[in-house]
Amino acid sequence: MRTVRVVQFGVGPIGAELVKYCLKKPGIELVGAVDIDPNKLGKDLGEVTVGKKIGVPITRYTGDFLAKAKPDIVLHSTGSYLKDVKTQLLMIMKSRADVVSTCEELSYPFLKNPTIAKELDNAARKNKVSLLGTGVNPGFLMDTLVLTSTGVCQDVKKVRSSRIQDASSRRLPFQKKIGAGLTRAEFQSKAAEGTIKHVGFQESIAMIAAGLGWKLDRIEENLDSILAEKTVASEYITIEAGQVAGVNQTASGIINGENVITLNLQAYLGCPDPRERIVIEGQPPIDLTIKGGVHGDIATAAVVVNCIPRVLNAEPGLMTMKDLPVPSGWFAEIHNFLR
Amino acid sequence: MRTVRVVQFGVGPIGAELVKYCLKKPGIELVGAVDIDPNKLGKDLGEVTVGKKIGVPITRYTGDFLAKAKPDIVLHSTGSYLKDVKTQLLMIMKSRADVVSTCEELSYPFLKNPTIAKELDNAARKNKVSLLGTGVNPGFLMDTLVLTSTGVCQDVKKVRSSRIQDASSRRLPFQKKIGAGLTRAEFQSKAAEGTIKHVGFQESIAMIAAGLGWKLDRIEENLDSILAEKTVASEYITIEAGQVAGVNQTASGIINGENVITLNLQAYLGCPDPRERIVIEGQPPIDLTIKGGVHGDIATAAVVVNCIPRVLNAEPGLMTMKDLPVPSGWFAEIHNFLR
Repeated sequence: MRTVRVVQFGVGPIGAELVKYCLKKPGIELVGAVDIDPNKLGKDLGEVTVGKKIGVPITRYTGDFLAKAKPDIVLHSTGSYLKDVKTQLLMIMKSRADVVSTCEELSYPFLKNPTIAKELDNAARKNKVSLLGTGVNPGFLMDTLVLTSTGVCQDVKKVRSSRIQDASSRRLPFQKKIGAGLTRAEFQSKAAEGTIKHVGFQESIAMIAAGLGWKLDRIEENLDSILAEKTVASEYITIEAGQVAGVNQTASGIINGENVITLNLQAYLGCPDPRERIVIEGQPPIDLTIKGGVHGDIATAAVVVNCIPRVLNAEPGLMTMKDLPVPSGWFAEIHNFLR
Repeated sequence: MRTVRVVQFGVGPIGAELVKYCLKKPGIELVGAVDIDPNKLGKDLGEVTVGKKIGVPITRYTGDFLAKAKPDIVLHSTGSYLKDVKTQLLMIMKSRADVVSTCEELSYPFLKNPTIAKELDNAARKNKVSLLGTGVNPGFLMDTLVLTSTGVCQDVKKVRSSRIQDASSRRLPFQKKIGAGLTRAEFQSKAAEGTIKHVGFQESIAMIAAGLGWKLDRIEENLDSILAEKTVASEYITIEAGQVAGVNQTASGIINGENVITLNLQAYLGCPDPRERIVIEGQPPIDLTIKGGVHGDIATAAVVVNCIPRVLNAEPGLMTMKDLPVPSGWFAEIHNFLR
């Protein structure tokens, strides 16, 4: 049986985690990797990610790269915003490869980016490939799992999902992204620039609303800092009391002035009780907690790679997590999961 | 837009709950109902279920019933065992209607009933209809939700799911089914007859194993009573200390002598802390709890009716929950969810 040929597009921290997990999956063959980082170019993909050569060089993207690598599917992780990655996605689809991307805005692009969504969907259908944006969040915890939880409900009035994370165990770029170590003023200035916030709340809310069939009047977002109450430290940073320990971000989907969907993300160093929580006000009511939370980087790579057989099986077009079968892990040769 | 025509096949407690929920769903039209209970025959379906006439009589099944009613989909709830309902399912599919059934053994029939599964799948494909067995359990809490939870995992070593239910709020037939009020000896004699146990553990375990790609050596089941420690009462029954309050049932999927999948169901009167719990020993580990648990009858009707658009959209054949898109609730006109 031939292997499923995978190209890794973008070998940053998430891309590296994707490669690590792919190397464990029977039936998947990594056949190429592209990046723009001069420190990685020319090096072996395995050496950069798992410290062991696998005979796949990291190269700069060139026009005939994909035609030569002939991937069945490309794992794409170069950016959060569709305007930045659209051209890459179109290029990949033109090579007739399916795509799973960690681009947050791709997870449910129909609300905020309807024109790009249409363009990507058209390209996917024309090239007979499937395209999916996913990850742990957006993509799983605060949208797919929320929708799944409503499967047992005869009525849903309100939906709340919160993600309370201890950022201490996350990588340094993540800790920086949430503003850890800044003063409150620095945080606010960065927040105003838009560099601190989690991207994906609008997409998660839009996906939940579409799944339930709710027409929202609008979505509101709010971003604030969480200040350290005492000195807290991670492997990388030490934060004094009064400095920013992390972020507290809320987004609400509103109908008739009521917050019918509320997502709250708190990610900070020293969080004492990390957890995921989903509360459905409905019939029956649901109060779901994942104690300790779910580790973001490991889980994002898991969700992306676990979706590979589902995307390979899917009809052509731009997919979202709510359109695909239950996204479970798979732990046997990949052809067992292909149609 | 034409309505989606639904026939209710079996108007017992679950069938009645299905009808109640269907009557709230925009775009669904109940066009017929069959049962064998002389106390229901000839009565109006709405009168029997929601205390209000809807102009649909409950009739005995006759050869031309479905040809006249012309349902798009039939909700089937007459039994737990495939040998008892196979003929009904074949008959319904012959009329070119899709089917969602609460038959527990249909939820994942490939392990215990492979021959019937093949026969039903062939009939579904021949008649170009889709057939799904589902409910809250089997169908959702101890299989679909377990598989969904592994979606964030890069490795899964063991899976445990437990359902700790307070049976006090359930209907009388349920309380009787779990042995409430019996002496321990009566319980054991009924257990030996096979009339007490929850049907569906083998199906749930087989579905989890298939989703993960695990080949089990065998499945073991164990059934015991839970005795009341003090007097407990429900609306229907009072139980003295020492009498049976309910059931404690475990099933394990085993590989190389290890219980890799363990399902535990405790349903008893006076349970102080009802909950659903899913524990994944894996990377990352998952420890999920639904506080208070999920009300079984409401949830079974919810899962069945919530799956209607997914089954109408599905390719012909015998489906299982792991093959269908995320089973969320839907709360707008049904055509919004149809392809």
